[in-house]
Amino acid sequence: MLTRVKSAVAGFMGGIMAGGGSGERGNAGSELPLKFPYTRPQFLGLSSDEIECSADHIARPILILKETRRLPWATGYAEVINAGKSALNEDQACCEVVVARRRPMSYCPPSTPSKTPTAKRRNSLPNGEGLGLRMEYGKLGEESEGLVFHYWALFDGHAGSGAAVVASRLLQHHIACQLQAVIEILRNMSSPPPTVLGEEPDNNPYLQGNIPVPHRALTRAASLRGAAGAPGSPCSTPPPPRFFTEKKILHESLVIGAIENAFKEMDAQIEREKQGYSITGGCTALTVLYLLGKLYVGNAGDSRAIIIRSDEIIPMSTEFTPESERQRLQFLGFMQPHLLGNEFTHLEFPRRVQRKEVGKRMLYRDFTMNGWAYKTVEDEDLKFPLIYGEGKKARVLATIGVTRGLGDHDLKVHDSNIYIKPFLSCCPETTAPVCCANGYLVAIEAKKQRPITGKSTQSR
Amino acid sequence: MLTRVKSAVAGFMGGIMAGGGSGERGNAGSELPLKFPYTRPQFLGLSSDEIECSADHIARPILILKETRRLPWATGYAEVINAGKSALNEDQACCEVVVARRRPMSYCPPSTPSKTPTAKRRNSLPNGEGLGLRMEYGKLGEESEGLVFHYWALFDGHAGSGAAVVASRLLQHHIACQLQAVIEILRNMSSPPPTVLGEEPDNNPYLQGNIPVPHRALTRAASLRGAAGAPGSPCSTPPPPRFFTEKKILHESLVIGAIENAFKEMDAQIEREKQGYSITGGCTALTVLYLLGKLYVGNAGDSRAIIIRSDEIIPMSTEFTPESERQRLQFLGFMQPHLLGNEFTHLEFPRRVQRKEVGKRMLYRDFTMNGWAYKTVEDEDLKFPLIYGEGKKARVLATIGVTRGLGDHDLKVHDSNIYIKPFLSCCPETTAPVCCANGYLVAIEAKKQRPITGKSTQSR
Repeated sequence: MLTRVKSAVAGFMGGIMAGGGSGERGNAGSELPLKFPYTRPQFLGLSSDEIECSADHIARPILILKETRRLPWATGYAEVINAGKSALNEDQACCEVVVARRRPMSYCPPSTPSKTPTAKRRNSLPNGEGLGLRMEYGKLGEESEGLVFHYWALFDGHAGSGAAVVASRLLQHHIACQLQAVIEILRNMSSPPPTVLGEEPDNNPYLQGNIPVPHRALTRAASLRGAAGAPGSPCSTPPPPRFFTEKKILHESLVIGAIENAFKEMDAQIEREKQGYSITGGCTALTVLYLLGKLYVGNAGDSRAIIIRSDEIIPMSTEFTPESERQRLQFLGFMQPHLLGNEFTHLEFPRRVQRKEVGKRMLYRDFTMNGWAYKTVEDEDLKFPLIYGEGKKARVLATIGVTRGLGDHDLKVHDSNIYIKPFLSCCPETTAPVCCANGYLVAIEAKKQRPITGKSTQSR
Repeated sequence: MLTRVKSAVAGFMGGIMAGGGSGERGNAGSELPLKFPYTRPQFLGLSSDEIECSADHIARPILILKETRRLPWATGYAEVINAGKSALNEDQACCEVVVARRRPMSYCPPSTPSKTPTAKRRNSLPNGEGLGLRMEYGKLGEESEGLVFHYWALFDGHAGSGAAVVASRLLQHHIACQLQAVIEILRNMSSPPPTVLGEEPDNNPYLQGNIPVPHRALTRAASLRGAAGAPGSPCSTPPPPRFFTEKKILHESLVIGAIENAFKEMDAQIEREKQGYSITGGCTALTVLYLLGKLYVGNAGDSRAIIIRSDEIIPMSTEFTPESERQRLQFLGFMQPHLLGNEFTHLEFPRRVQRKEVGKRMLYRDFTMNGWAYKTVEDEDLKFPLIYGEGKKARVLATIGVTRGLGDHDLKVHDSNIYIKPFLSCCPETTAPVCCANGYLVAIEAKKQRPITGKSTQSR
């Protein structure tokens, strides 16, 4: 196993080193152009010389904002190159005020959201003040500008900076694009989101207690679909309204849905554009949105967002690791064993199983278990475990230590055709939004040096 | 849909009524004998006359213990027949002190655990005192009697009382049987559970840092399996011990694993024995174990366990409902679409989709989403949703309102060949055990009349 891990690490690093220097060129041997040039977060405003110095693994300068009031909300930022893990800093960050303008629902080009004229980016406010959103709204004018949101994001890159750079440039536009479809609804807080767009409430039988028009031919499936009162149905009286209740969806749920689908669109775009561009590696993505007075956190990866309110620390995200996601991954491997090739087992053991242990009883657990039990070791159990290692050393398919993120579409188990991607999911967890007022400090961090301490609460 | 729901309900109830009276005879037309006669919980000590009176849907007598000190730990109990939902009370309960005796690991007959002489049941203590376990232990004698645990369980039955009666008689023996395999380990708290049973620690290369004996022929798969230092490996020096770390498993994890596997064995036994016995319906299962000074809760269903400690209420279980398990069920339906027949869609909509809405944009969410977004309605979306309804009316496959439990192996969507079972899981959630001392009140309830109030904490 050591050999294999070493080779995998070398392959990992090789890809990076080959594209090293101030302008990464993607995978060794790849002639494809970069989608975006390598850089540090744009709000740092570094010169190309400074960008090169930032990657000094000896000095390890701490980069902070040149002007403390450059970013909205008096946002602070600090980064440092990792200790020799990669030639360049593969992490990226973004902080912007984004305006999503009204647009017909159907138009939301997934492939080039950065070029849509409807999502306008304002990197820094004209006066550089850390203003609250309400002031922003007044200044921009709701009617003329559409919907404004503040956006902060961290991308913890690995195996190349390509995916992190692309995501740091485009994810906010995917979110804006998803929000465009619901701007009118979000701005009209007095009515709930309509179930069907463009439907007159009077024509909705579910809201009126009327009976839907029966279909011409009623198959069994169609009858299951609910044509009560249709020909052949023993029930001739109108059904009681309780069978036609309609779920009331909150405005906030549309924002959450927009963030969730934006992550998936971002990941799909990276996959598509790898045909024409060099987009190396993968990255986690942690986004914070402030929209209409509420704070939304979307997280795909093992970075962390917290709110600090006087002496309280409120976790706003949970970390996705091979250990925290063991049961989801094992379930996937159990349901779709071909994803494990013939080399991995979805079962977990406390350590590798040796051939001489076949027939003995050994501790194990599967996707149904939090506890452990003994099972008789079979030949099948000699395969490498899908999840292996503990803590920071835990890996999925002996390859990757994080289980959610963007990119990595080409990433395979070393020297095999087993893809990591179905196990590595791009879907974020989006927590219930919090109303955010003065006195809150929101912090997002890519490297978690220590566990959250202090008085912690889940109440939001 | 109403028609279909009505028929399903009639079918549901018909099965019960056919087996009604004081001795349930199982499904209509079934000539199979009952596995156990219908009864109320044995600790109530009711006569057959009293059992019949207990099912009076007009008087609805509240049944409590005749002697308040009949059960250990001064356990209290109360039940009442439901308001006409079924002829008999389909819920069951159990409270016992169970002794698991030492036994060779390999012997744990899954089909007839009730007949194994090794799991001894003591329904009520000789002196009837509500004694703490430590006194019990001293009295029973660890050496001679094996391992003692206190056991409380609730089974919320539906569509017949068969599964609930069987589970209330046998689940504790499945737990005892699983624990038998690890009695020696659990009683020796000074050493951690061995990874492999019967292995001399000196012979374990993973603990010693030695190199495993290389296999004769090294395939690529075998090399993946970690034969470091084997022929052909570029790594000839002994690997650093970090690649051979072994997870330390806690004693408590073995108890949790035993509970988890006992639920699965119980469910498998019901499935097997339905060949020869009438075992109607299904049931949730909520178990509380007190073992070696700690309290373990295993829950498969929507019943609830709480601990009350002065003014604190500590939830010890979460409720499994179509709403709380939506994403697991939708993921299963997405991954294995054949389980949905051709009649259900894994997507959720705020209400049923009508044919005339095809082509319009409607709110939806899938297994990746907590929020909602709009999608263009397609023909496929006219299928009935896998999860439908809200709150207590939420149903899986238009059939069942709970998503974990035992039994129900024959339960299908009305007038179809779509089985509920793969969506209805028998796997319990077993929470981390708590040390339990005087002043704790543990409560389990099948019918949740109100949400938990008071100061609630997750700290255990």
